[in-house]
Parts: sequence; structure tokens; C-alpha cells
Amino acid sequence: MTGYIEVFGHGGDVETAASRFGGRAADFLDFSANINPLGPPKEVLEALQQGLHSVLRYPDPGHRGFKALLSERLGVTQEQISVGNGAAESMALILLALAPRKVGTVEPGFSEYRALARQFGAEVLHTEGLEELNWQAAPERIEQLMEKVDLLFLGQPNNPNGVQYPVEVLHRLARKAEETDTVLVIDEAFIDFISPSLRQTLAPDLNKYSHVIIIRSMTKFYAIPGLRLGYAIGSARYIQAMTEKQVTWSVNGLALIAGEACLRSREHFEQDTISQITHERTRLIQALESCGCSVTPGEANFILARVPEPWTAASVQEALGRRGILIRSCAMYPGLEAGHVRFAVKGAEANDRLLDGLRSVLERSGDLDVNPASADQGSQQDHTQHFEKTKGGKRL
Amino acid sequence: MTGYIEVFGHGGDVETAASRFGGRAADFLDFSANINPLGPPKEVLEALQQGLHSVLRYPDPGHRGFKALLSERLGVTQEQISVGNGAAESMALILLALAPRKVGTVEPGFSEYRALARQFGAEVLHTEGLEELNWQAAPERIEQLMEKVDLLFLGQPNNPNGVQYPVEVLHRLARKAEETDTVLVIDEAFIDFISPSLRQTLAPDLNKYSHVIIIRSMTKFYAIPGLRLGYAIGSARYIQAMTEKQVTWSVNGLALIAGEACLRSREHFEQDTISQITHERTRLIQALESCGCSVTPGEANFILARVPEPWTAASVQEALGRRGILIRSCAMYPGLEAGHVRFAVKGAEANDRLLDGLRSVLERSGDLDVNPASADQGSQQDHTQHFEKTKGGKRL
Repeated sequence: MTGYIEVFGHGGDVETAASRFGGRAADFLDFSANINPLGPPKEVLEALQQGLHSVLRYPDPGHRGFKALLSERLGVTQEQISVGNGAAESMALILLALAPRKVGTVEPGFSEYRALARQFGAEVLHTEGLEELNWQAAPERIEQLMEKVDLLFLGQPNNPNGVQYPVEVLHRLARKAEETDTVLVIDEAFIDFISPSLRQTLAPDLNKYSHVIIIRSMTKFYAIPGLRLGYAIGSARYIQAMTEKQVTWSVNGLALIAGEACLRSREHFEQDTISQITHERTRLIQALESCGCSVTPGEANFILARVPEPWTAASVQEALGRRGILIRSCAMYPGLEAGHVRFAVKGAEANDRLLDGLRSVLERSGDLDVNPASADQGSQQDHTQHFEKTKGGKRL
Repeated sequence: MTGYIEVFGHGGDVETAASRFGGRAADFLDFSANINPLGPPKEVLEALQQGLHSVLRYPDPGHRGFKALLSERLGVTQEQISVGNGAAESMALILLALAPRKVGTVEPGFSEYRALARQFGAEVLHTEGLEELNWQAAPERIEQLMEKVDLLFLGQPNNPNGVQYPVEVLHRLARKAEETDTVLVIDEAFIDFISPSLRQTLAPDLNKYSHVIIIRSMTKFYAIPGLRLGYAIGSARYIQAMTEKQVTWSVNGLALIAGEACLRSREHFEQDTISQITHERTRLIQALESCGCSVTPGEANFILARVPEPWTAASVQEALGRRGILIRSCAMYPGLEAGHVRFAVKGAEANDRLLDGLRSVLERSGDLDVNPASADQGSQQDHTQHFEKTKGGKRL
């Protein structure tokens, strides 16, 4: 054991997993990154195929085609949209543009909020979620934090617990943001995975609030994380300030082509995704509980769970890693514990493989440090089987 | 006439050109962006085709494969390389990481040096090139500027004049950089277009100087500007500071795939490119001079020229624009004049079309403001012919 494999602070790093656990990076069954298991809409892959020659031209630095489509769908003006090289760049641009001295976070939460805030010189204050609130913080604690900071990041649904604040709480926080002159940044990177009727969002009410910015990601729901595409919507003065800080051509041309194709294929793709995720999430939660895990009942396309003792996030991650299955340890999240892990909700076949692997791991002794050889030996065979199965290329 | 079409400060904006001059953006024959007319190596397009499905995975945040190849080719360690989302991001990261209060530029030069420096809060001081030095500045003037600034940008070859400083001057400036504790950033975005035996670069001597950073672009020479890829090499302490300021996954996965394929196909591609560019540049320079233009004898894949009076950069740009040919006005470069334009060196057929267009434009009266109708009428027919010719899809 040589420390966390999340050396860059995130899941999805199959390169590091391969060097740590063996196997080829591309062959890992990756439950550590929360990407739509359906893969991109077929129209998106077709658009990329057809648009491949566009790499010969500079991308449109004004992102005009993609912005026009977004504006139409979201009911906001193009002046209220900033397109980013991934949602991570949108966060960075907010920090660069608004230069908050103090930034607030709710922990456990996406580590980039803290990391970027510090990277751009802000002091980070936080409040913590409570297990009895499914790792959400009480609204009054968030309000108290807003009194102390210039900008607050809120995940909706929050990563890693997958829980949404009710929209009434969001309205309350948006009013508090104005009152305290705090910028409220709501990160809706995963909200598309939730059924439209259940989504808790201020997006339709954005023009009522001067201090709210909503960030969305195109890469998780549309399964194009390799391309990088996200956006922020908010008042024109924030957006203008962000645009002034963005490096020219920061958003690549294929991302823009894919983004337009994504929005055009949204309707059918959304239905397919949500029905699969909802069904598989319910099934996974039940199976995880029957394995002895305690599960946070979230609504997103990932599940926060605590593995049964004596297993820890690290030892389960390693045992599964040797079987070619990558999961996210959440032991390093402030507020969470050594046994916390996160599983992406993938397709039925992949989820079955995860559950099979997990069941056979949890049947054995949990302490790899004390007795690593037994786990090592036992997993070698499964590992081979796994790679044979996936080499047929069925997994997108 | 409604102002410059370089609304984003650069060439290559065929979207704006199309809305100003008519026609479809993709149909413009673009001499305003300095991209290799051969297009990407065929191995690169193949690698992109085969790697398209990799958009489903997050890019490697450590850029390990591409860095390993670069390290081997350049003879520097991986700790001396920072991979950027285009050379523009590399510049931005230098400014973010080193936070110079005063930045020096040599004008005329790439406008991003000034724009980014101001964007990140630095004061910009400059010295000017002289026409008799082909728009280079005298070395002693650059040294004087280095005494006043924390960081200096130098284009090598410089954009828009295409001229290199002799390597002896670079050594002198690198020593001065140490003496004055100034960071010397040498932008070699276009150096690959120059024959290896003629390149003036400090790259092989990088370890001798503590204060030098070299920036290179992969997008111009390898014709992949839509993908965004560049890098910086320098001392490990500068590179480490840049890495700390980079947003996670800033470099997209297809850019990394393309970058590796570019480096693998370098040798034959370099020979083909340089022999074509050298031949066509010589031919274009002669033809431009015979049209009455005065030409700066540069060595790069673009040519700075002054159109004959009464024509101006703006009126020639507009007249050619209506014919579906886009050129770069350089009238807004500090130090240059209303008649300065820049032409990319493209393939023989494209260059012929530029020369035909230019000849027929320059034969007429130069003042479109006084008599726009004649230019309008005359160009309409050519415009149609141009689009017919290009719709066959021969132009990559």
C-alpha cells in the first residue's frame, strides 16, 4: 500500500490505477468516475466523425453556435452564458474574475472547490454535513458561513453523497447571498441525471437573483469527459468578467461540435439515461446493503457507501483494483471516514461485475496490510478473466 | 466598413468574416491564420479516428504519454515540461505562476503577450522594432527593457514579421535575464517551419540558463488548432509553479492522442512541410513585390507586407473578403501602419488564388469608402466561383 491512488485528487485516473494494480489502463472497469454508462448519444459520435477535419481550423473563440443553442434551451440571453473548457475551467474563471478573498465550501464536497480557491489565493472556510442529514449541512449553518465568505460553492446534487437541497432551501440561500453580498455558485454538474420533475434548481429563476451563478457540465451526462465542455450561467456582469479572464480558444473545436450535437439529441437520450440510472441505482443500493455496506440514499448517478469493518476504502479499492475494477476511495473527504467509497452507477452488466467482485472481496479478511498475499493470489485469476471479457470491445 | 474583423484580436476567425463579408465560414480560403497547408500528418487523423472513443474517459491529468515522448525528443526531463491547452494557456500559466508586476514586449508582436499580461494584472512596457531592422528591436533596446520588467516575451521567429534574432543575441539576452532577474519567455510557436539548420534557438542550451522558458505550439505546424496543444520547457521550479496553477484536465484527451501521433510522424512531415513552405514563400514574396507590395523578408510560414497606396489593410481585406479570401490586417499592431497585412504561406493552388485575387483588387481604386459599389459588384462573380471551386471539398 503506497497511499491513495487519487494522486490528482479525483477518480477516473486509470493510468495510475494500471501502474498500481497492474493491467492496461484502458481495460479497467471504472466505477471511480461518474460518467453516463450509455456513452455519448450516437449523434455525437457521428458529429465528431464528420467534424474531425475541423481540427484544422481554430475553434470559434466566441462559442457562438453552442451558446445560441444553450440560450434557446435555457431561456437566458447569450450574455448570461460563459462556455468553459470543462466545468472545472468555469469554476476557475469565476474565481479569477471575482477574486474572492474568502471562499466557503460544504464538506464533504468536490475537492476542486477548495483546491481551485486556494490555487487562486483565497482562504477557504467550511461547514460540515452531518451523517443524519445524509451528509448535507443544515441550511442555517450554510447561511452562517455565507456571512463570513465572499463566495460559496454548493454541489446540487452534491458530490460524493448525491443528495439535493430542496429548491426552497436554494431560494433561501439565494436571498441570503444578496443580503450578505456573497456569490452563491451552485454546481449542477450531475443534475441532468435526475428526472426533470425531481430536479431542485434555481435555473428558471436565475433572473430573480443577482448573486447566483449556476455551473453545468456537458461531459458527465453526455459521456465526453475527454473532450472538456461545461458552462456557467448567471448575471451578465459576472459572465462578462469571466469572459475577460478566459484564454482565447480555451474551448476546443471538437468539444463545441459535440456540445451542439448533445443539445440536439437531448430529449430521447435524457429519457433513456434517467430510466436506466434510476433502475440500476435502486438495484445497486439494495445489493450493497445486503453485502453489509451502509449506503447514503442519494439521487445521482453515483452512490456513497461505507464498507463493513474490518475493510477500509483503501483495502477494498486495492482488492477490486487487482480484479481490474476501479472504485473511488472517499476516505480523504473531510467529514467522511476510512470506510467511505463511491461507486458510479453503470450499466446492468458492469454493475453485476462490480457486485460479484465486491461480494467475493468482502467474504475474505479485510486487512490487506496484514495478509496481502491471500488477496493477491485470489485476484490474479479473476483479473485475467476480466481482461478477456473486456477485450471483445463491448464496453464503450 | 465597421471596424476590424479581428474582433477577438486574432486571425482565423472565419465566423466573423462570414457574417461581415457573406458566404459560409467553412468556405473561406483563410490566409489570416498561420496553419501548415499540408494539414495534419495522416497518422494524426488516423490516430484521432481510432481514438475517438477515448472521449468517454477523462484525459490523463498528468499528460504522461505525451510528456515522455517530448522529454525523449527534446533532451529535457519530464519535470522541465508543462503541457498546455494551446500555447496560449502556457503563456497564461507562466503569468499566473510567476505573477510578474511588469511585463515587457517588443512591438509589433503577438497581441496575446500584452492582452494576457494585462488580464493577469501586470503593467506592460514595450520597445519597438524598426523598419530598417525588419521590425526587430535592437538588442540593446531589449536589454534596457529587461532592466525595467520582471518578465519579457520574445517571439522567435516573431509574429507578424517572421524574423528570427540570431542565437548569439538570444544568449546575450539569456545572460541579461539572469543578471536582471527577469524571466525571458521565448515563444517558438512557428520555429518548426524553419529548416533545422537555420533555426535560432536556446532549446539545446536550456540547462545553462536559469531564467529562460521556451514555449512551443503543436497546433500550427501540425495543423490541429481546433484541438489545442502546446507546451513550455524551462527550469523545474518554473514548471512546477505552472503545474500548480493549471486547471485539472485542461488539456483534452484527443489533443494528447494527436500530440503523440504528431511527434511520431515528425521526421517525414517536417521535410515535406519545410520544402513546400520555403519554395512557396519565395514565390509569394516575388509575386507580392511585383504587385507593388513592400515585403519584410521573414523566414516563417507567413509574410508581412505593406499594400501600395491608396489601398489600406482594411480595404484590401474587405475586397478579398468579398471574394471568399481572408487575410490578416496588421494595421492595429503597435509600430505598423495602415497598409500592413499578413499572409499565411499556403499550398501552390491556394497561393495562386490569393495572388489572382490580390492582383485584380489592386488594379482598381483603393478607396472602398468612397466607391464601395464598384468593388462590391466586381467581386460578386468571383465570390460565387470561389465557393463552387471549394465545395468539392478538395481543400482540407
